[in-house]
Amino acid sequence: MFKLFPLKNGLENVQGFFFGAANVGMRTKPSDLNSNEIAGDVAFIRSDTPCDIAAVFTTNVFQAAPIKHFQKYPKDFQTNFVLMNAKNANAMTGEKGIEDIDTLFSLLSEKIDVLNPVMSSTGVIGYRLPINKIASAFDIFDFNTRNSDQTAKAIMTTDSFKKELAYKIELENGESFHIGAVCKGAGMINPAMATMLCFVITDADIPKSDMTELLNDATEGSFNRISVDGDTSTNDTVLLLANKQSGSYHKEAFAKALEKIMFELAMLILKDGEGANKLVAFEVKGAKSQDEARKASRALSNSLLVKTALFGEDPNWGRIASTIGASGIACDDQTLTIHYDDLLIYSGEHRELDKIREDKAYKIMKQDSFKVTCDLGLGDGAYTSYGCDLSYEYVKINAEYRT
Amino acid sequence: MFKLFPLKNGLENVQGFFFGAANVGMRTKPSDLNSNEIAGDVAFIRSDTPCDIAAVFTTNVFQAAPIKHFQKYPKDFQTNFVLMNAKNANAMTGEKGIEDIDTLFSLLSEKIDVLNPVMSSTGVIGYRLPINKIASAFDIFDFNTRNSDQTAKAIMTTDSFKKELAYKIELENGESFHIGAVCKGAGMINPAMATMLCFVITDADIPKSDMTELLNDATEGSFNRISVDGDTSTNDTVLLLANKQSGSYHKEAFAKALEKIMFELAMLILKDGEGANKLVAFEVKGAKSQDEARKASRALSNSLLVKTALFGEDPNWGRIASTIGASGIACDDQTLTIHYDDLLIYSGEHRELDKIREDKAYKIMKQDSFKVTCDLGLGDGAYTSYGCDLSYEYVKINAEYRT
Repeated sequence: MFKLFPLKNGLENVQGFFFGAANVGMRTKPSDLNSNEIAGDVAFIRSDTPCDIAAVFTTNVFQAAPIKHFQKYPKDFQTNFVLMNAKNANAMTGEKGIEDIDTLFSLLSEKIDVLNPVMSSTGVIGYRLPINKIASAFDIFDFNTRNSDQTAKAIMTTDSFKKELAYKIELENGESFHIGAVCKGAGMINPAMATMLCFVITDADIPKSDMTELLNDATEGSFNRISVDGDTSTNDTVLLLANKQSGSYHKEAFAKALEKIMFELAMLILKDGEGANKLVAFEVKGAKSQDEARKASRALSNSLLVKTALFGEDPNWGRIASTIGASGIACDDQTLTIHYDDLLIYSGEHRELDKIREDKAYKIMKQDSFKVTCDLGLGDGAYTSYGCDLSYEYVKINAEYRT
Repeated sequence: MFKLFPLKNGLENVQGFFFGAANVGMRTKPSDLNSNEIAGDVAFIRSDTPCDIAAVFTTNVFQAAPIKHFQKYPKDFQTNFVLMNAKNANAMTGEKGIEDIDTLFSLLSEKIDVLNPVMSSTGVIGYRLPINKIASAFDIFDFNTRNSDQTAKAIMTTDSFKKELAYKIELENGESFHIGAVCKGAGMINPAMATMLCFVITDADIPKSDMTELLNDATEGSFNRISVDGDTSTNDTVLLLANKQSGSYHKEAFAKALEKIMFELAMLILKDGEGANKLVAFEVKGAKSQDEARKASRALSNSLLVKTALFGEDPNWGRIASTIGASGIACDDQTLTIHYDDLLIYSGEHRELDKIREDKAYKIMKQDSFKVTCDLGLGDGAYTSYGCDLSYEYVKINAEYRT
């Protein structure tokens, strides 16, 4: 079969890719990094050979300029350069926003040969990019460095830690390839993607036709299942770049590794959820269909009342039941059961929580992470979403963001 | 035509109705009233002649026992008694919950003649009613008192003030009738009703056929348009009781007065929104249909990022635009305009906020209430929802509720 080995360093392990960042003064506060260090604000990932590329973008109608710019390339274009910036989303900036990207790439091409470069931005909506500031990074970048730590930090916004992972995949025939990924995201996280950017690079010799299929599957199993606050942004992007340099590939192994790396990144986003202290899995099963299970599961991970009860560590299953009942799906209070981890907390026969079970429930809720399982007892539909609690800190971060 | 006069006292003005409350010890904290006074926890409204009744109930599948009990009566039943309690929702209590209500009414009928009595409960989900405690109120009640202040306070849960209003309607021919209402609600408020109870009583000689129509219309224009946190409860109820004792009626006047009283109560609920400091109207117009306008408007009033930006008094129109773009309706950033009160804050031509307009926007946002108008420029669909900001206090109240 194959084996997956987590790698201590990140993107550096993937053959033929280079990364770095520059600080051009778009960040004003060291607190952006929860330390005294001011991270870079402009970063790049490049490959020394052309890459096939697959992408998943936000479902928001107001897609940001970088996404519109990407979509102007012909369908099967190849690229060797991704430019990123923090602090400015280049969203709701109209045609000018797209022209600004072209201007930047024209300046960039004076410094280095780029093939169909793409851009990804994150930050505040509604302001034109500071072209000169960003372009000044092109003189600072060392295009032949492999400092992925810098890149991972440069795309952070309200993130409190950088998110970077890599795996080596060893096949039975002794061949191997690598997948590495960085992402940013901490708030505005919704089951239909999230305010997040994710860049996955690989040296696997993956056919272009597999890239879109496997990226879509892995996104559905990871970023589409997490919620911090139920909001979907204008910039959400997941990119997969493959330069094929290892010459090796195995579809099942690649799919498994991609799913694993993206799921782990999604959990890191949730753990870093703005002001969040707990990570909770909401499994809904026994629904009439998977679609109904998904609706109920997402309603749970998005409910303010559920999220504040998690923060208060209050085993108030009534809020769980009420949210399912309001989610617009078929359900029945006689067949419903609710578990916190392995503890039965509600069933048609056990409606009131006795002291012993309530004490056990308190203990479960004090954990950093646990699972809420709602079995509707009506069919085979199942779906799991992942959410977090809602704390004072979330309100503080989001009331003060931008200013 | 007709004139509406607000009345200083509340329900007392409506002929033939009686109200009162008792404290049977279900409340544990004086803080329930934001004062040292402990309110009653069981209350009643009765009429000395039979009333026609119309009702609007929660869309939550898990309707509470009092709602199921109500629905067991024949279609056009008359009643003369409504029993209410706080602190226990009698929801998710199964058949036993309905039997408990019958037990209570059987005990009640030993004290006073009641005709098809109905019950309304609010409080924590998942516990059986304390029958003996509640029944002990029947010995305390003065069934011939008109203390509506007691009734209004007895149904409060996280409310910080009681909500009671009344109008006298004078017709051109010199005749008059009255409408009075009490309601409770402060959190778990969603556009599709809310965690709220509302009891409207009238001595108007309104035909039964008008009651349901006008109550539905007034609910759509009031309680269905407000949002505190986007959650819908198991107990939401609006009741309209008419004992016809004034002998007077005028459909248009009644409709107008009912709309007015219910809209004003809805705004009181928002003002009392858990931890809320600001009341904001979200008008969406120029949408392709009213349905699309409603979707976008409700998305705005429910968005955590919009609500925290309101709390932070940050004129960050990007969050408004992003929420509309994610609401699943047709929209175009070229035709979209956004106003805060009369101030143009975004249009296809004015995408960046200059210093002067930003300063004006700050001033508008410092008000206790203001209006956000989003014109999509695509059609005639319009809808207005009402929301509030999200503060630390909301999290505190909902993390600590129950315990």
